[in-house]
Amino acid sequence: MVEEIVHAIQDDYPEDFAWCYGCGRLNTEGHHFRTGWDGSETVTYYKPGPQHKAIPGFVYGGLIASLIDCHGTGSASLALHRKNGFEPGSFEEPPRFVTASLHVDFLKPTPDGQVLKAVGTVEEIHPKKFKVAVDVFAGDVLCAKGEVVAVVMPASFANK
Amino acid sequence: MVEEIVHAIQDDYPEDFAWCYGCGRLNTEGHHFRTGWDGSETVTYYKPGPQHKAIPGFVYGGLIASLIDCHGTGSASLALHRKNGFEPGSFEEPPRFVTASLHVDFLKPTPDGQVLKAVGTVEEIHPKKFKVAVDVFAGDVLCAKGEVVAVVMPASFANK
Repeated sequence: MVEEIVHAIQDDYPEDFAWCYGCGRLNTEGHHFRTGWDGSETVTYYKPGPQHKAIPGFVYGGLIASLIDCHGTGSASLALHRKNGFEPGSFEEPPRFVTASLHVDFLKPTPDGQVLKAVGTVEEIHPKKFKVAVDVFAGDVLCAKGEVVAVVMPASFANK
Repeated sequence: MVEEIVHAIQDDYPEDFAWCYGCGRLNTEGHHFRTGWDGSETVTYYKPGPQHKAIPGFVYGGLIASLIDCHGTGSASLALHRKNGFEPGSFEEPPRFVTASLHVDFLKPTPDGQVLKAVGTVEEIHPKKFKVAVDVFAGDVLCAKGEVVAVVMPASFANK
């Protein structure tokens, strides 16, 4: 089992697209989610801060949704990058995805003070569209299940 | 059209449950989403900060998911409170909801630098379970549609 992400896809995002509040390495105020391969699955670890609570003792659902969101786009990028023959850390620029839809089922309250682990399985549903199923664990406890449909970022997004 | 929320349901949440990163008035680092009635619809306004970007020029999807999440639980609380004969600002303690599921369809990239408006319609699907359909606008542009299933907070959540 990977315990830490050595080569995260977000480390290789082009600089113009590395500002995401969730996963952008250049966003000084963001979460810095980092997503890598663990065999054929994708993994993101994150320890919520004490401010990220829903009610005392439990993690805020919006943060879990954020983790699933960026884990989904990161996983899709990993998958297409691998399909193209590349791995993170190869210094090839990976494709950047955006989220078309996000679904989260909150199965159990997520205890705070623990490192969360998001695990993804990626399915190509179109050459430019990937579906990522995400399980979020606190320790061994499956707390939330998510699904992200991610699409290759349209060129128009780069016009700003 | 309501331009600002005078009486938000979150203003009346019991102190123990007013710490949510999204909508808790006592969380000094959170978003402080505030949700109120506009006729039979519910409304939350929020202006994302410059750090809340996905890519330069556009708002982070995880923030939009967070807005929809808290707008959903707040709307459910408003609806059950009204069913019980109360409005926010009446100093009656409203019911506190948690999110069972959250879905977001990102229809268009959400431009930054604008006040977002989440508009909800609430449907009771069980005495303790409400479904909230949410539209998120930037100006007149519908940028995202969401659905939240919210349930009355189980008593066990208060044990922490």
